[in-house]
Amino acid sequence: MTHPLPAILAHLDETAPAARDRLIDWLRIPSISAQPAHAGDCGRAADWVREQLQGMGFTASVRPTAGHPVVVGHHPGPGGNAPHLLFYGHYDVQPADPLELWTSPPFEPAVVEGPHGPRVVARGAVDDKGQCAMWLDALRAWHAVAGGPPCRITVLIEGEEEVGSPSLDAFLAANREELKADIAVISDTGMWDIDTPAITTSLRGMVYSQIDVRAAGRDLHSGMYGGSARNVINLLTQILGELHDENGRIRIPGFYDGVKELTNAQRVEWDALGFDEKAYLGDIGLSIPVGEKGRSALERLWARPTADINGIWGGYTGEGSKTVIAAEAHAKLSCRLVPGQDPQKVAEGIRQFVQDRLPADCTAEVQVFSTTPGIEVPADSRWVQAARRALSAEYGKPAILMGCGGSIPVVESLKRLLGLDSLLVGFGLNDDQVHSPNEKFELRCLHQGARSHARLLAEMAG
Amino acid sequence: MTHPLPAILAHLDETAPAARDRLIDWLRIPSISAQPAHAGDCGRAADWVREQLQGMGFTASVRPTAGHPVVVGHHPGPGGNAPHLLFYGHYDVQPADPLELWTSPPFEPAVVEGPHGPRVVARGAVDDKGQCAMWLDALRAWHAVAGGPPCRITVLIEGEEEVGSPSLDAFLAANREELKADIAVISDTGMWDIDTPAITTSLRGMVYSQIDVRAAGRDLHSGMYGGSARNVINLLTQILGELHDENGRIRIPGFYDGVKELTNAQRVEWDALGFDEKAYLGDIGLSIPVGEKGRSALERLWARPTADINGIWGGYTGEGSKTVIAAEAHAKLSCRLVPGQDPQKVAEGIRQFVQDRLPADCTAEVQVFSTTPGIEVPADSRWVQAARRALSAEYGKPAILMGCGGSIPVVESLKRLLGLDSLLVGFGLNDDQVHSPNEKFELRCLHQGARSHARLLAEMAG
Repeated sequence: MTHPLPAILAHLDETAPAARDRLIDWLRIPSISAQPAHAGDCGRAADWVREQLQGMGFTASVRPTAGHPVVVGHHPGPGGNAPHLLFYGHYDVQPADPLELWTSPPFEPAVVEGPHGPRVVARGAVDDKGQCAMWLDALRAWHAVAGGPPCRITVLIEGEEEVGSPSLDAFLAANREELKADIAVISDTGMWDIDTPAITTSLRGMVYSQIDVRAAGRDLHSGMYGGSARNVINLLTQILGELHDENGRIRIPGFYDGVKELTNAQRVEWDALGFDEKAYLGDIGLSIPVGEKGRSALERLWARPTADINGIWGGYTGEGSKTVIAAEAHAKLSCRLVPGQDPQKVAEGIRQFVQDRLPADCTAEVQVFSTTPGIEVPADSRWVQAARRALSAEYGKPAILMGCGGSIPVVESLKRLLGLDSLLVGFGLNDDQVHSPNEKFELRCLHQGARSHARLLAEMAG
Repeated sequence: MTHPLPAILAHLDETAPAARDRLIDWLRIPSISAQPAHAGDCGRAADWVREQLQGMGFTASVRPTAGHPVVVGHHPGPGGNAPHLLFYGHYDVQPADPLELWTSPPFEPAVVEGPHGPRVVARGAVDDKGQCAMWLDALRAWHAVAGGPPCRITVLIEGEEEVGSPSLDAFLAANREELKADIAVISDTGMWDIDTPAITTSLRGMVYSQIDVRAAGRDLHSGMYGGSARNVINLLTQILGELHDENGRIRIPGFYDGVKELTNAQRVEWDALGFDEKAYLGDIGLSIPVGEKGRSALERLWARPTADINGIWGGYTGEGSKTVIAAEAHAKLSCRLVPGQDPQKVAEGIRQFVQDRLPADCTAEVQVFSTTPGIEVPADSRWVQAARRALSAEYGKPAILMGCGGSIPVVESLKRLLGLDSLLVGFGLNDDQVHSPNEKFELRCLHQGARSHARLLAEMAG
């Protein structure tokens, strides 16, 4: 039997206009999970996915949760020992405001010409409807040409990713047996550039905390008490001003325990990418990098932990003057973690760091809002190797193994609740305006992404 | 001719109940300058003063300003070379909220028994209606017994002190000739304790500033940029965390230029007061003094400059988490100044301090909202000496020369616009709840304050 892949790729080429129109159809549904007025639209976007899956040989259903519903689909594949893939995505989108900054209405998708050819401009164009559309197209092509995918497939598309997936963990826990698979495939990350495919093999985790420091029992007059009573805002700046040493190293006790140095292979590969930090910072109006001295930009962004104060407040913050010595002051402090760091230990370290600098007559509370570990996908796993082959074949050059400075919380949930590793293959570009006005997705990415996923299915099955 | 003072003091003793009732009358008028709904009440409180003055031989009028009116009264005194005193006070009061914390309605004065005898509880009881009532009573008694005061008198009572006296400077400038005098007498300060009278001979000044620091051109995602892009809140804490060195000295360049050391006499006098800083801080829930090491509490509060952050804000300050690296952060920084420091130079020092710690790709603006110098009244002036004799005679013990950690802006205005020094003789106590619920004034202070002012008039004339 001839391998069906060439015919499948040809089919994807022939049906590219229909694929574009299908995505546009989905993008017209304003499935904004954050806004209760759009709850009905979330349901419609879920139904749309269910119908797509049912049209390509899946059993599929829209399943209720405490929030927006989850779409689950199953395809038995060829049977036998074929691997079982779980494709994860989300049909919900971010709010579209500020509306006045859009060049076309966010839910009336516009196809406009850009430097890389036509692109579709709409909320959700890339995050995550466009990225889901690619693997849906690949599955559809395998169904049309070969009667079905070469692997057993489970599809899980949720509707609350943009609001922190509050119902997902409970859904995963309640449906553990049904959602069993060998590997999760997630398309929510980016390429290195439009010509260079990438697999994301590490994600930073996070400890997010709030520090509440209290000194005097009430607000004081700075004339009456200044020079005798502790100023809690002065204190908070003294504490937090010591977060980093002069080499950019973070002073939280035990912070670097477990942090691994890059392998030589990683270092060579990342250095070869020629990342232009000057341009990266120039785009946001900066020119001087921060972070640990003596480490490359990509290492600092992908493989080193951080400590950023995300918010600070205390005392008088209105117009003009008020001569108050405040009783309390607050800060939000988050640390991005890398694989190997223990989030609980980092949280404890933050407490210790504050406590070590606290005068005996003051108190500090450290509230920890979330702890997620950094995640690493072994680069030599069969799944990463398969993806690397598929992407390299499609793009005619090697696929890069990247890190990601942010977190994808579902990756941690899938690992924790289902024991599943994730393969992160995405086709977004840096200028896709994710979460911003004029979000877009390159139709070239949509098409080559679908072809890549078709190849990936073949490689995974192989 | 017998000196009239004994008869005047006896008259004050006999008419004390009437004096109390007069103050209560005035306190019933809710002359809250901050609240436009009370503009009419401010006018009524001004009229009340005018009538009082007219009833004791003054020509008096209520004079319009851009805001609440000013009451001006004149009494020629005995003529000849008698000195010319300008009594300053204010008829406006602070808002009374939170109302639920008052034990009796703020504008229905209640006479209640306390550890020092009866006190009157009402908004404005001490600040400043009670303190004005004392010298008005003294002038009235001189009028009743001796036909008039032994000095030439100008009275100036404004109605905007509690909102920063926005119309006062213009009024002083426009009425320079009319308001000429030899010395201003202001009763808006405190005693050392109810048995120990005090003259305040130094006031701290102030530079109040706002620091606005900007880094990136927009808010950034901390996952995408953390480890490469400058976090402006981290930066602001690093800058402000260095305000004080390990000995509590302020690192602003040139900050201590012109600061004078205490004289031996001052040091001996202040040390003899036996100020209990432990109790002072204990009242506000603290136990560890701040400020410069090796200096006494009263020195730090009265004779040393400070740098207090009065407010700070930036980034995400709502509930829960947001992983943002903010583009800008802000702080209010005020320095209390002592006599000898140049406020303009301190403002320039703040700018320099921030600039010295600013990375080249960030910007900082230092807005200076106000600059007032510290003020010193020479302890050996004839006015201070006269006041010291009067107070010591009334209380049977020496009057103390105190400093004041706060500012009284009118003192600076009178000096700058009329060339007038101020004599600060006040009868408030620390527990008078100024600006707070249940503000009170001890009737014993009211009475002995009136007697002290009657004596002061005699001493000044002498």
